[in-house]
Amino acid sequence: MISLLLDTSNQALSVAVNRNSRMVAEINTNYKKTHSETLVDNIQKVLEIADIKKNELDRIIVAKGPGSYTGVRIGITVAKMLAKQLDIPVYTVSSLFVLAVSNGQEGSTVPLIDARRGHVYGAWYKIGPDDYTEIIAPQYADFTALSAEIEDAVYLLNGEERITIDIEKYTHVTPRISQTERYEKALKLEDADQLVPDYLRISEAERNWQENR
Amino acid sequence: MISLLLDTSNQALSVAVNRNSRMVAEINTNYKKTHSETLVDNIQKVLEIADIKKNELDRIIVAKGPGSYTGVRIGITVAKMLAKQLDIPVYTVSSLFVLAVSNGQEGSTVPLIDARRGHVYGAWYKIGPDDYTEIIAPQYADFTALSAEIEDAVYLLNGEERITIDIEKYTHVTPRISQTERYEKALKLEDADQLVPDYLRISEAERNWQENR
Repeated sequence: MISLLLDTSNQALSVAVNRNSRMVAEINTNYKKTHSETLVDNIQKVLEIADIKKNELDRIIVAKGPGSYTGVRIGITVAKMLAKQLDIPVYTVSSLFVLAVSNGQEGSTVPLIDARRGHVYGAWYKIGPDDYTEIIAPQYADFTALSAEIEDAVYLLNGEERITIDIEKYTHVTPRISQTERYEKALKLEDADQLVPDYLRISEAERNWQENR
Repeated sequence: MISLLLDTSNQALSVAVNRNSRMVAEINTNYKKTHSETLVDNIQKVLEIADIKKNELDRIIVAKGPGSYTGVRIGITVAKMLAKQLDIPVYTVSSLFVLAVSNGQEGSTVPLIDARRGHVYGAWYKIGPDDYTEIIAPQYADFTALSAEIEDAVYLLNGEERITIDIEKYTHVTPRISQTERYEKALKLEDADQLVPDYLRISEAERNWQENR
């Protein structure tokens, strides 16, 4: 089973080719460049490096958010396009779960994306070698309220951007989507026609629009 | 400060471009393909992905072993060649230290490379966020004897090859050389003309030759 994996949901970009859930080749980047300009090129590069042809792919796995609106949308769009073109299934995974397993460490883990105004996208998992328990599902939450519910855990923060939440001890993590596939339970088979990003909250534009009605 | 980092010392290949010790782009692979065929091409690709030209590089960091004889030799040779061509310094780092920090986790860490016949290449580090202590220096050792000296630690095993040592609990790690540069102490400035691999033991061929004399 050969999979192509994509995560463009935040500043970092991660694309990988796995065989039987283990990484064959991956490209990870961490700099401000529009994923719309680089994603397709990086997919071609990672396939070349892995020595895999597009038509050998068995499935696509894409991070569905939360994260930047345009970032998530680009990943989802390219994944849908490829899945339909190659007639293979597309699966999604939470961008927070990607973070949680990127470092390969096990145990009680809280992946976080800073969402400004004291808020985060966060979740709480207990990660084992091939399985995991979701204790708090991915959500948009006030960080103080969320962290009050969490006992002993390692906090993993996406990227190396400025931190606006009041957090004492954490590890910066760059997403590596190659690491997610061994946790089959985290992957959700999607209908490519129906697939939409999972922003976990409505956009400011939508909120303003609703408030103005 | 822009660095190019290379690790071809074992089956996995890791090349990265860092800016101020943080990853901009990395390519990691994990499959049986000769690094001599792929290294130069992957260096070109990672520079392209990072949007960095060769002549913008300030230094080269290469994993000097232990590991496979040909793998280590290829990395060292390409690093020397590039350093001389671009007239920039070349630094080395132990392939075991690369493993120790690849997962980004901190604490008491024992990176291991299986060396068959009950032996390993191993070391013992206490890893902090930006600094570390080397408790047992990289060495070729009998695993039972080595592990008897080690107290509470996380064991990290290179790659996903067959394990021949008697070890209960460990994590498989793929080397990510992008992670090493924040530990400046681990990097050793070398004279490019004098630079040789650090195999940590003589080869079987050399041993046979010595025994036959």
